[in-house]
Amino acid sequence: MNDGGTNSPVKVVVGLGDRAYDILIGSGLIARAGAEIAARLPGIRAAIVTDENVAAAHLDALTQSLESAGIASTAITLPAGEKTKSFAHLQDVVDGVLAARLERGDAVLALGGGVIGDLTGFAAGIVRRGMNFVQLPTSLLAQVDSSVGGKTGINSPHGKNLIGVFHQPRVVLADTDVLDTLPVREFRAGYAEVAKYGLIDRPDFFAWLEKNWREVFSGGPARTEAIAQSCRAKADVVARDEFETGDRALLNLGHTFGHALEAATGYESARLVHGEGVAIGMALAYRFSARMNLASPDDAARVETHLREVGLPWRMADIPGTLPDAERLLGYIAQDKKVSRGALTFILTHGIGQSFIARDVPSSEVLAFLRENHPG
Amino acid sequence: MNDGGTNSPVKVVVGLGDRAYDILIGSGLIARAGAEIAARLPGIRAAIVTDENVAAAHLDALTQSLESAGIASTAITLPAGEKTKSFAHLQDVVDGVLAARLERGDAVLALGGGVIGDLTGFAAGIVRRGMNFVQLPTSLLAQVDSSVGGKTGINSPHGKNLIGVFHQPRVVLADTDVLDTLPVREFRAGYAEVAKYGLIDRPDFFAWLEKNWREVFSGGPARTEAIAQSCRAKADVVARDEFETGDRALLNLGHTFGHALEAATGYESARLVHGEGVAIGMALAYRFSARMNLASPDDAARVETHLREVGLPWRMADIPGTLPDAERLLGYIAQDKKVSRGALTFILTHGIGQSFIARDVPSSEVLAFLRENHPG
Repeated sequence: MNDGGTNSPVKVVVGLGDRAYDILIGSGLIARAGAEIAARLPGIRAAIVTDENVAAAHLDALTQSLESAGIASTAITLPAGEKTKSFAHLQDVVDGVLAARLERGDAVLALGGGVIGDLTGFAAGIVRRGMNFVQLPTSLLAQVDSSVGGKTGINSPHGKNLIGVFHQPRVVLADTDVLDTLPVREFRAGYAEVAKYGLIDRPDFFAWLEKNWREVFSGGPARTEAIAQSCRAKADVVARDEFETGDRALLNLGHTFGHALEAATGYESARLVHGEGVAIGMALAYRFSARMNLASPDDAARVETHLREVGLPWRMADIPGTLPDAERLLGYIAQDKKVSRGALTFILTHGIGQSFIARDVPSSEVLAFLRENHPG
Repeated sequence: MNDGGTNSPVKVVVGLGDRAYDILIGSGLIARAGAEIAARLPGIRAAIVTDENVAAAHLDALTQSLESAGIASTAITLPAGEKTKSFAHLQDVVDGVLAARLERGDAVLALGGGVIGDLTGFAAGIVRRGMNFVQLPTSLLAQVDSSVGGKTGINSPHGKNLIGVFHQPRVVLADTDVLDTLPVREFRAGYAEVAKYGLIDRPDFFAWLEKNWREVFSGGPARTEAIAQSCRAKADVVARDEFETGDRALLNLGHTFGHALEAATGYESARLVHGEGVAIGMALAYRFSARMNLASPDDAARVETHLREVGLPWRMADIPGTLPDAERLLGYIAQDKKVSRGALTFILTHGIGQSFIARDVPSSEVLAFLRENHPG
């Protein structure tokens, strides 16, 4: 166990052959970013992509850290929020990087949450057909999810994350100090993805979270441990299946229902943010598995109880405002990218930590389930 | 030698491990496209991306060929011309593919020249983080260059092809019949890239072209042979260096000067098209090599003579209208993507078929050379 507060970060290696990289997790990593980056990418220049909120809190510290390591940088600051994951802002970042005359061996740094990470990684993946990419995730969600595995992208009116590339970072610096300034709702949303790793294939980790979630929320070694466990869990899956032709789809537990709910609420963060969609989606995946006699209703109840206890939404009725009807929700699911040749693919489960990829799920069963659970 | 006119196309294999693919070159391949694609990608649906000119000539034939092989398709038709390689049209293609509800295992087909191929390949590479991509190149340039090697992209106000991905096609169908309907200026522009393969590292092929270029222009077996030789030459280089970290840069012979001239003429095809820029660029690369005492002035003259003989422009004075001055041309060169850490990288030569990558070319020498050869 790491003490979570010293200058010795925990290191998780994402083993991807010649694209392998380190995730460093710990205190004070923004201040050390210049040194860590210069050690791995000597002689570069950098563009920092961030959003207005994160810039106010952390941009100066990062710029100074880079400067003191001899890395000249330029900043590209975007509006905060999911709507920034658009073609228009992708073009802003690409133009900004080219206007700064960065070369192929220079680096593009993402300083922010999942939105900034996904958008920036995509831009880094397409400028000059691929520049160096470094992530400094500032939300819990980004630290445990978007910073591992190289998926980048933007949203389309047709659905979330439908446009993007696989582009691995050269290093990820997850500064745990910055999480203390997060609004609790945002921290909770990220926690949904932490719990997800337990629910996929680590039942002991889920049981540990049921006991220790308060310490994860309050900070210190339990938080660092939870982040490192999550990164290791994801890195294991990604190393087995970098381009999502098989097992990697397990990471989508809760995401098929979740993405549909995000689309159905117009990506309005006031109503639902990504991690909340995943929380409801995981509860629905467990409840649907129970309905299909694949898992025990007790396990579904255990998931619902834990999500409710930490303060996460866990059912559609928890979303403020009116939802589209069950038929329209099914339409959003069918357009989601986890569709293969017209059959619905879901991540379902045989119990806590026993998730599996279910192909050919009958849409009639999904529709009936959505009707039964629809609050409207 | 192939007779260039039967139903037995010449096959060139691009050896890229699990991304290996066939290039078929020959007569009647658009009519056979449905069968060739269905054999490789059974059960798919397709989106055809094309431009207005090519659509008028070939879209019905392709759609019918697909239909008779059981492949439902939708067409996305864009304006013709280099300006189509833009963010706006990339978004059109991406939206069109998503609106057609194509899945990750479906295919995006490029029916057109290099502009359509580059733009469509980029779109196929980013929709759902990578869909199947099939090329049906309809210009000589596209058949010998853009269809081999998986480079895709669009232009930026900062320069040409600065934004894109590496995304290999699943199969390339190069129908030699369609070349008979090309305007001679466009065929000539493509021929510049054919000659390039001789000038890079195949002196015998260049000598063969000096003797046989008239037959290549008039069609028949010499044309099919020249296309197949060109594809083989490029495939050899790409197989050695898929992601352009080394030798692949040799394929940029003529492109550093050429791209700068294209940018300097605002990508106005009335003044200069890509292959013409490459022709002038190759002549300049040979002349500059002679000026640097790297190659014999006789070899530079031999290149100039051949380009002039086939009717290609070979010097800056051949470009209609006024060019920016030498200083501004150097600025376009410095922004081109073949820049590494501020040093200018050029493909220079020790003679016919003896090209090499020259790093750290002094910009002062380039500037002096541009001044000497500037027509203004």
